[in-house]
Amino acid sequence: MITGKNYIGNQLSSEGSKTYKTFNPKLNIENTTLFHEASSEEIEKAVSLASNAFEIFKKISGAKKAEFLNAIADEILALDQALIETYMSETGLPEGRAKGERGRTIGQLRMFAKLLLNGSWVEATIDTADPDRNPIPKQDIRKMLVPLGPVVVFGASNFPLAYSTAGGDTAAAFAAGCPVIVKSHPMHAGTGELVASAITKAVEKTGMPNGVFSNLNSSGIEVGTQLVQHPKVKAVGFTGSIKGGRALFDLASQRPEPIPVFAEMGSINPVILLPKATESRGKELAKTYAQSITLGTGQFCTNPGLILGIKGSSLDKFIESLSDEILTIDPSCMLHPNIIGNYERNKNRALEQNGLITTADYHDDVAVNHARQTITTVEGKTFLENTTLHQEVFGPFSMVVQCEDIEELTVVISNLEGQLTGTILAENDELNSYPFIVDALQDRVGRIIFNGVPTGVEVCPSMLHGGPYPASTDSRFTAVGIHSIKRWVRPFSYQSWPNHLLPDELKNENPLGLSRLVNGSSTSDPI
Amino acid sequence: MITGKNYIGNQLSSEGSKTYKTFNPKLNIENTTLFHEASSEEIEKAVSLASNAFEIFKKISGAKKAEFLNAIADEILALDQALIETYMSETGLPEGRAKGERGRTIGQLRMFAKLLLNGSWVEATIDTADPDRNPIPKQDIRKMLVPLGPVVVFGASNFPLAYSTAGGDTAAAFAAGCPVIVKSHPMHAGTGELVASAITKAVEKTGMPNGVFSNLNSSGIEVGTQLVQHPKVKAVGFTGSIKGGRALFDLASQRPEPIPVFAEMGSINPVILLPKATESRGKELAKTYAQSITLGTGQFCTNPGLILGIKGSSLDKFIESLSDEILTIDPSCMLHPNIIGNYERNKNRALEQNGLITTADYHDDVAVNHARQTITTVEGKTFLENTTLHQEVFGPFSMVVQCEDIEELTVVISNLEGQLTGTILAENDELNSYPFIVDALQDRVGRIIFNGVPTGVEVCPSMLHGGPYPASTDSRFTAVGIHSIKRWVRPFSYQSWPNHLLPDELKNENPLGLSRLVNGSSTSDPI
Repeated sequence: MITGKNYIGNQLSSEGSKTYKTFNPKLNIENTTLFHEASSEEIEKAVSLASNAFEIFKKISGAKKAEFLNAIADEILALDQALIETYMSETGLPEGRAKGERGRTIGQLRMFAKLLLNGSWVEATIDTADPDRNPIPKQDIRKMLVPLGPVVVFGASNFPLAYSTAGGDTAAAFAAGCPVIVKSHPMHAGTGELVASAITKAVEKTGMPNGVFSNLNSSGIEVGTQLVQHPKVKAVGFTGSIKGGRALFDLASQRPEPIPVFAEMGSINPVILLPKATESRGKELAKTYAQSITLGTGQFCTNPGLILGIKGSSLDKFIESLSDEILTIDPSCMLHPNIIGNYERNKNRALEQNGLITTADYHDDVAVNHARQTITTVEGKTFLENTTLHQEVFGPFSMVVQCEDIEELTVVISNLEGQLTGTILAENDELNSYPFIVDALQDRVGRIIFNGVPTGVEVCPSMLHGGPYPASTDSRFTAVGIHSIKRWVRPFSYQSWPNHLLPDELKNENPLGLSRLVNGSSTSDPI
Repeated sequence: MITGKNYIGNQLSSEGSKTYKTFNPKLNIENTTLFHEASSEEIEKAVSLASNAFEIFKKISGAKKAEFLNAIADEILALDQALIETYMSETGLPEGRAKGERGRTIGQLRMFAKLLLNGSWVEATIDTADPDRNPIPKQDIRKMLVPLGPVVVFGASNFPLAYSTAGGDTAAAFAAGCPVIVKSHPMHAGTGELVASAITKAVEKTGMPNGVFSNLNSSGIEVGTQLVQHPKVKAVGFTGSIKGGRALFDLASQRPEPIPVFAEMGSINPVILLPKATESRGKELAKTYAQSITLGTGQFCTNPGLILGIKGSSLDKFIESLSDEILTIDPSCMLHPNIIGNYERNKNRALEQNGLITTADYHDDVAVNHARQTITTVEGKTFLENTTLHQEVFGPFSMVVQCEDIEELTVVISNLEGQLTGTILAENDELNSYPFIVDALQDRVGRIIFNGVPTGVEVCPSMLHGGPYPASTDSRFTAVGIHSIKRWVRPFSYQSWPNHLLPDELKNENPLGLSRLVNGSSTSDPI
């Protein structure tokens, strides 16, 4: 069922000579399929098809695009156990996670289908003419969001379904009216190909133009580089490391025509433990956080890698409880030998820093590619002086910073890089007393959480998944939820355009029944 | 009344040793005031004040910020004739234009004040909790737009009021809750200082934090470079040349923490003359366009620098009429000897290109710094082969491209760089017959106009002033209208946050009566 080939539009193709295999980290063996990396000619063809498809796709109605998105969801479900088993064999993740992530992926596609059926997301804005205005007559102007053009989506290692081939970036781009070229993640190329086959079936069944989707295999940086530099590519979506995301951002910014890159990258997701909560609920919080730190073997972008508290016996007890609790959890398998290799390397680099004390390090034997969870602690002063300690250790690792007082805690927060999330653990009456903490944290993060855990990114309109750099390359956008569509669209104005030639979204009659801003007031009435 | 000093927050300051003067192009003499360029220390102080002011300003209510914006408008009006005369002495522009631009500037400030009083622009989005949801309880999440932080605004040479000190970028940034540091344009530093004094009075009268505004004099690139590279600066607004805008974009993209730059830059604003309209209304259109090309001595970003038609006797007659008409218009003064110097240089570079024919070039004597309007024509094939001919000639210059047929016309459009506007001149029944022209043009521009002129940028919600690169550095935003505020804000989510500590915009009670998206439905009801 898996061919190892690329989808260049609707056609399977394997012209390239470079090949690679995926890896089963649980069994510690290579999977059997040989994947053909896309050749330069195949890339060129995919982009050319996408650019041509754009001229058709951009004019397809919301209702038809919704049908397309729902068809993708149906076809993914129809892959059934073949998809789940391939997913598991390429990630070492358990069946429950595979099914959960599939559910999320399907849910995102259907969410965008619903958004398209409603249609008001285009933000139709109309100001009607006033020919009698003095000194200059007022022209009729009508604005709506239109798609940018072909979008390149990079698959994410840690979410083979929800942030990859038919994940959030792709679903949002299709909804916007943009063709998508996926640079498949090499660690789960088989899962990627299966999902690509589902998208291709949906393209054919719902009559979408050939080239609206391509899936390119790649194990190095060449395919991605050629794609991002291609003049016909108009935007890029990425989820992964700071190094990878920044490289793409730099390539895109340095083009003769720069294009937007939304890269969701590193985050250590600081958690602030306020004194009263530490004292009254330290033990319980330690238990909750031992779970959150090891969830998915710590391979979540919202993993809490940094806990900030005020020095004292309550914090000591919290650290002790957290260290005890985390050692009771069975180590689990990481996605790939490279991922666990990076985990060990980055953890060891942190552990080598002066002043960092290890309070828990799983030391029993572990199965191959299973990660040893680790808790460390350091003084606030030491943390402030050494930015190596601010770097993400992707995996089940966390660091507790013991600050002298609330002032030092505020300084530590202000000196953090941008983050996806910031969490405050406090008693209900306690938050009031620390406005500066909340202010400082807000400036550094995209989402702020009260008495919860940062892991778990709800797919809903109010979600902001992104944040100040390096959490993302542009804090003005989100990677999750309906508003993530805004990454792939631009406003476009029609001035004095004949009514019958306007898109339906802007016609006087309002045939789609959209909510529109007409002469400054929101209405769904015709004009 | 004009001191030549910088405003570092509310304080006048002149520590720098570098000085310069503005120039009266009509009288061809330097104006008398000596302006002190901001020193490195003054820049540092302005940014530090802005960063501190941000922590206060970001929490000031919409109603208070509206008061501030209206106070700026009032104080600008109170400058009365002193402002108008300074403006005229620094630009060579007539009194009517000065007053018109002041009206627009005041109007923009009051428009944002109104937006703040309404309040719904923050796009409050709320999803309430569902503790009983299986398998994972749903958390309460609430999102709204929050300011990015200190914004640097670069004054524009051609709009000393509407796109400079208290112009659209500044008004939108203040409305968003961002402090502003203006890099004053050296050609109208006196106008800039007067407006800065008005803003400073408004800051003091309405109790805004010191540092929410600074105005820095500068005649070179050093001040702008230091500002854009400063870690505490979070965004940049610019209106001007491609060279200048791209340099700032590159600086901002290459920072350790990249920041968004909205630069509105070059555009030749293609106008498509369809055959029937050329035939039936060529003479009338030529008259209209002679006016549009010379409006404000061609110093508008929406000046029509390129007219595309189909070869034939009707187009010949149009070119003849346009050439005749434009020579009946009296030449007018450009903003500065440098501007007219660039005009002459860029025009001559174009005229040197093979195949470009001059059909009108004002040859009578002109007063000093007055520009000679020029019309040229070239074959479609020649235009396609020589991208030098695609470059903007800022001033009263336009080029008519004679295409072989509608196919060549479509190819020419597709090969243009990104543009602010595209105009189609056609009979009512004619537009229908050329869908590919409309499609191709839409991909290249931000605003499309039917049977009008591109000059005249209405300040209204439906306006898109921007467009694909190099018309702007990010086609997803507009420089004009209420939605221009989106350049300076980011969405921010609160998860499980106590109701009484949420900002008013997100509280259950909806005390501000905003229109909000609650559990997927738009409502202004409390929760």
